[in-house]
Amino acid sequence: MKNIALIGSTGSIGTQTLDVIRKHPQQFRLVSVAAGQSVEKVIAQINEFQPRIASVARKEDADKVMQQTNGKTAVYYGKKGLIEAAVPPDGDLLMNAVVGSLGLEPTLQAIEAGMDIGIANKETLVTAGHLVMEKATRHDVKLLPVDSEHSAILQSLEGNDSKEVERLIVTASGGSFRDKTRAELEGVSVKDALNHPNWNMGAKITIDSATMMNKGFEVIEAHWLFNMPYDNIDVLLHKESIIHSLVEYRDKSVMAQLGTPDMRVPIQYALTHPDRLELQDTNRLNLWEIGELHFAKPDFDRYRCLRYAYDAGRVGGTMTTVLNAANEEAVSAFLQNKITFLSIEERIEEALKRHQVVETPDLATILEVDKDTRAYVSSLIE
Amino acid sequence: MKNIALIGSTGSIGTQTLDVIRKHPQQFRLVSVAAGQSVEKVIAQINEFQPRIASVARKEDADKVMQQTNGKTAVYYGKKGLIEAAVPPDGDLLMNAVVGSLGLEPTLQAIEAGMDIGIANKETLVTAGHLVMEKATRHDVKLLPVDSEHSAILQSLEGNDSKEVERLIVTASGGSFRDKTRAELEGVSVKDALNHPNWNMGAKITIDSATMMNKGFEVIEAHWLFNMPYDNIDVLLHKESIIHSLVEYRDKSVMAQLGTPDMRVPIQYALTHPDRLELQDTNRLNLWEIGELHFAKPDFDRYRCLRYAYDAGRVGGTMTTVLNAANEEAVSAFLQNKITFLSIEERIEEALKRHQVVETPDLATILEVDKDTRAYVSSLIE
Repeated sequence: MKNIALIGSTGSIGTQTLDVIRKHPQQFRLVSVAAGQSVEKVIAQINEFQPRIASVARKEDADKVMQQTNGKTAVYYGKKGLIEAAVPPDGDLLMNAVVGSLGLEPTLQAIEAGMDIGIANKETLVTAGHLVMEKATRHDVKLLPVDSEHSAILQSLEGNDSKEVERLIVTASGGSFRDKTRAELEGVSVKDALNHPNWNMGAKITIDSATMMNKGFEVIEAHWLFNMPYDNIDVLLHKESIIHSLVEYRDKSVMAQLGTPDMRVPIQYALTHPDRLELQDTNRLNLWEIGELHFAKPDFDRYRCLRYAYDAGRVGGTMTTVLNAANEEAVSAFLQNKITFLSIEERIEEALKRHQVVETPDLATILEVDKDTRAYVSSLIE
Repeated sequence: MKNIALIGSTGSIGTQTLDVIRKHPQQFRLVSVAAGQSVEKVIAQINEFQPRIASVARKEDADKVMQQTNGKTAVYYGKKGLIEAAVPPDGDLLMNAVVGSLGLEPTLQAIEAGMDIGIANKETLVTAGHLVMEKATRHDVKLLPVDSEHSAILQSLEGNDSKEVERLIVTASGGSFRDKTRAELEGVSVKDALNHPNWNMGAKITIDSATMMNKGFEVIEAHWLFNMPYDNIDVLLHKESIIHSLVEYRDKSVMAQLGTPDMRVPIQYALTHPDRLELQDTNRLNLWEIGELHFAKPDFDRYRCLRYAYDAGRVGGTMTTVLNAANEEAVSAFLQNKITFLSIEERIEEALKRHQVVETPDLATILEVDKDTRAYVSSLIE
């Protein structure tokens, strides 16, 4: 029996994680949950799973949760509450499914407590990869990616010697605007951007997918998770999202993980690694039904965020913190119709250009750079 | 240092095996070779690699080999010589690259001697899978497939629990006549049949590829090597031969091995398993250069040999011995222009229909059925 702490329980990854736990009651016990402002949802989750600890964003919501649950769950709120939920006394694995750099501190504390980490929150590694990896190594905990791409890489590495790896190949659908030129991107709406062709995900990640910043983050995440130089990480456009990613070895053999798009596969694999459990109500992959798979090389002038991500990753230090913070602010502004789609890139580029990198930042520096970048990007927008 | 015995050294797999050994002199030593009638070739091999044992098919050729080599290599001939070469006193691994059921007895003897086996000779498992597997289990030796398909499956199983496998998916190029209807197959020539679109292989296997009997054999081989029921083995038409095969797990995750067509990759993997060595002068796989991969379901009426193979495999016992023997004779007759391409199927069907299966045959029974089937098929042809 594995005790699971879940932060970000009401989002897309959170609810699918609960779906996996629900299907395997002999294997997993939910010991804590944290949500933001989706109070009704988290109340229903608490009443179903009876975790010992829960947390929400605001005090008034915590009071409401207390009233509408049976009193066996201790209810916290705010940042402190998020950490209570992330690091329960008997937690084996933290599933970090919150959105944004908010996920960083709970992850670091859970690692210190010796918990394995399911990482659905990619900003954690983008903003502070060196801190997370250094701590994970020191405390000998597993970092288990939940992104379909990194899960595919992890699965393609299993049973192999990591010293024999030559290249990681991260596949990319190209997002909702993959068939549009840059000129055609000028006038696109929030609604257009939220219409992803293959995956049904949260709003922020869907926009990041349209700009390909999501893929850029994944490249940075792959760099950290698999200790791979940026020159040995390629991005491959593959619009069907069937091959989830690939690993090339020194004998030029390429291993890949494939499947129909269903996030429960990588979520479940993170919970069961290196074993696999049944997943019955998902579609089997029959390639003859799909017929054709397509591949292309991404154009870094078309997808500027991808170039910014490689560039920031190569510089390292606080540069990726800036990349992430600027992106979060710019995407948020776009979702509020304050800036155009192409302005997302421009705001990020401005923030990166302005920044004086700190090479091996500590947590305080990262949080400061994060805050400073957000303030700067906001000042460009308001 | 691994001591390699190589039988079938002058054929396509044999010479590529030597290429791998040549490139890794620190890892591999060639201790014995056996060839058929390609005397000049084997003399050159002996002079280069200085194995302690060599064998050729005929006595007069053995004498010639003795005269033209430096005397440090003991030279044998015939079936006895083949076994001397297959089971050298200090052999670690036998690479069985002979063509046809001739490869069976040396394999069984090498297993008894505790040698691991690189199986490029698929007839060994088709004709006597239960004997080979039973012996391999008893003597705790590894059976390492050299076919690109089975090597892909082996690689896709590495690091996973075989109990968690749900399906093996063997890919098939469709052979040299994949775009032809059955009517168009009526008049095809030997030359047409030998023109395989993706792989440069020996004559017999190229014909087997055109009839898809090669794929049928691979299904039977996969059944034995990976202990998988026939209902859990699918064949997938994939004309680019880039995905070499796939494994589906119970979480519906599908692992695959990919690469440009180069038999040295699976050959080398069989020699190094589970490690991987460099293979530098081969083409890296860049899927963006290939652009598209295609998949289709094979039509068992179009590819009758594939249906015969599944049917014979499901019956089991000596039925697959008949399948293989009838195919060897029929293909040989086609290559000699004695029968038409479509007659290959007819002769096999007749041999299968006539046979009274023996359920758990011993080696003597298998050899007898093999001989009897060949005589019967020859009698239909001459």
